[in-house]
Amino acid sequence: MVTNSVPCTGYADRMETVSQFRSFSGSLSVHDHDSAVIGTSMRFAVYVPPQAESGPVPVLWFLSGLTCNWANVMEKGNLQQAAARHGVMVVAPDTSPRGEGVPDDQAYDLGQGAGFYLTATQTPWSKHFRMDRYITEELPEIVAANFPADMSQQGIFGHSMGGHGALTLHLKHPDTYRTCSAFAPIVAPSQVPWGEKAFAAYLGEDRASWAEYDACALVRKHASEAHILIDQGMSDNFLKEQLRPELFEAACAAASQKLTLRRQDGYDHSYYFISTFMDDHIAHHMKELKS
Amino acid sequence: MVTNSVPCTGYADRMETVSQFRSFSGSLSVHDHDSAVIGTSMRFAVYVPPQAESGPVPVLWFLSGLTCNWANVMEKGNLQQAAARHGVMVVAPDTSPRGEGVPDDQAYDLGQGAGFYLTATQTPWSKHFRMDRYITEELPEIVAANFPADMSQQGIFGHSMGGHGALTLHLKHPDTYRTCSAFAPIVAPSQVPWGEKAFAAYLGEDRASWAEYDACALVRKHASEAHILIDQGMSDNFLKEQLRPELFEAACAAASQKLTLRRQDGYDHSYYFISTFMDDHIAHHMKELKS
Repeated sequence: MVTNSVPCTGYADRMETVSQFRSFSGSLSVHDHDSAVIGTSMRFAVYVPPQAESGPVPVLWFLSGLTCNWANVMEKGNLQQAAARHGVMVVAPDTSPRGEGVPDDQAYDLGQGAGFYLTATQTPWSKHFRMDRYITEELPEIVAANFPADMSQQGIFGHSMGGHGALTLHLKHPDTYRTCSAFAPIVAPSQVPWGEKAFAAYLGEDRASWAEYDACALVRKHASEAHILIDQGMSDNFLKEQLRPELFEAACAAASQKLTLRRQDGYDHSYYFISTFMDDHIAHHMKELKS
Repeated sequence: MVTNSVPCTGYADRMETVSQFRSFSGSLSVHDHDSAVIGTSMRFAVYVPPQAESGPVPVLWFLSGLTCNWANVMEKGNLQQAAARHGVMVVAPDTSPRGEGVPDDQAYDLGQGAGFYLTATQTPWSKHFRMDRYITEELPEIVAANFPADMSQQGIFGHSMGGHGALTLHLKHPDTYRTCSAFAPIVAPSQVPWGEKAFAAYLGEDRASWAEYDACALVRKHASEAHILIDQGMSDNFLKEQLRPELFEAACAAASQKLTLRRQDGYDHSYYFISTFMDDHIAHHMKELKS
């Protein structure tokens, strides 16, 4: 394990580069740091494209789905090729706090690996589970201080639970994350089993508190000026019970939110689906950021 | 697990499709079958590009490295995008027999996951370890019978131990595998620790028997008419002790074998390296097959 230290400022007391790989003429690096917001160590990856040698580049945030960490999209997402082609940096955070002392649940869809990009208010989760604040407050300071990032040009995207994270963080912070897309996102967590289980555990039974983490509820309140792109595989096992993109389609139509929802025949929920459309998504962000 | 049966002929008594994924408008499928040559069940994957809807397409064989199976290159190799772009089928076999009853060794570089694409003559390995015959005799019959493959247009490539497999099988069967490339191949197994250990175990101490599985020895005996492409990362931890591409470069020069050896600064031995140059390799095979 490489442990080059990287200069850093802001919240984090310790940050180490745990590995680094050359990929598509750019650099993929993985970092471990002490997070003040989360209260544990956290790990994230950054892909810096070759264009960054000439100056700061736009930044996309990729939020992963249940059980995943930085590695899934960097290994299987065909991400670096598209990022290098379009000249954009991509940051991939973890999906929750992890490790000893962090509460967990035996199920894959609660606890470690299932942070749902929110601030938990219920015990035992409230001690560490603050993934929305980690991603919107702490990690941007670290990225801005340590990487050649043009923080005036940021977009956000993600997969499944991470698609939920991308949609909700974009809708709540449209001036920060100016562009947004998602692969097979959870769009209405308040209305589907994955979301109902997680929100009840993390936020409690009062459903009024759930609305600020529900993309369908948020878009009805405040549409953004962005043009959101969503790809959804039509052979996705989770389509009808957990994802229900038609609910977001209807909410966007009611709120005059620009949305392109592409129904992709034959594709499932896997990274084979994500990698197929990765280039389209990064191209979409870059086009929108430049417009 | 999907268990659609697929029609099949030839050696295999049983073949099942264990999974299938849509990827880059084509189809990736994984198959489990009883192998007569190996004497156990074996698993392989095939990516069929969208162009196959209009008729048979060329076939490339990708041989993986130590510890790997079909999944590494299909998940991390950026293979499907390039295969779909160029209209070529890719078959990814396993790297050895596996499972209960198959001899193994605690080390990662001997036994299961380390078949070295040869026919073992020494006990206990000789009962199952016949990966060269499996790949050159049995699997082509299955592929020809079950997939839209143009068997008159085949090429072979691979990574590390699989690069050794690709080079040696090409040099021994140049009319079958008309094109050849490799990522960070073992080119001189008789002269490096990985090869010396494996060949001593599988083939015995008589080094004369090793020559037919050594690319440097084979090319000195019979150069092929192909133009071989090799990419080698210059930050590869195995470069100086195990890979030694300069030995193959010298052997090719002495034998008038056409070779392009590209030394890629900063790249390591990982799939981040392979995925970066995958499109170049598939383009190379397609250009050579058409010429």
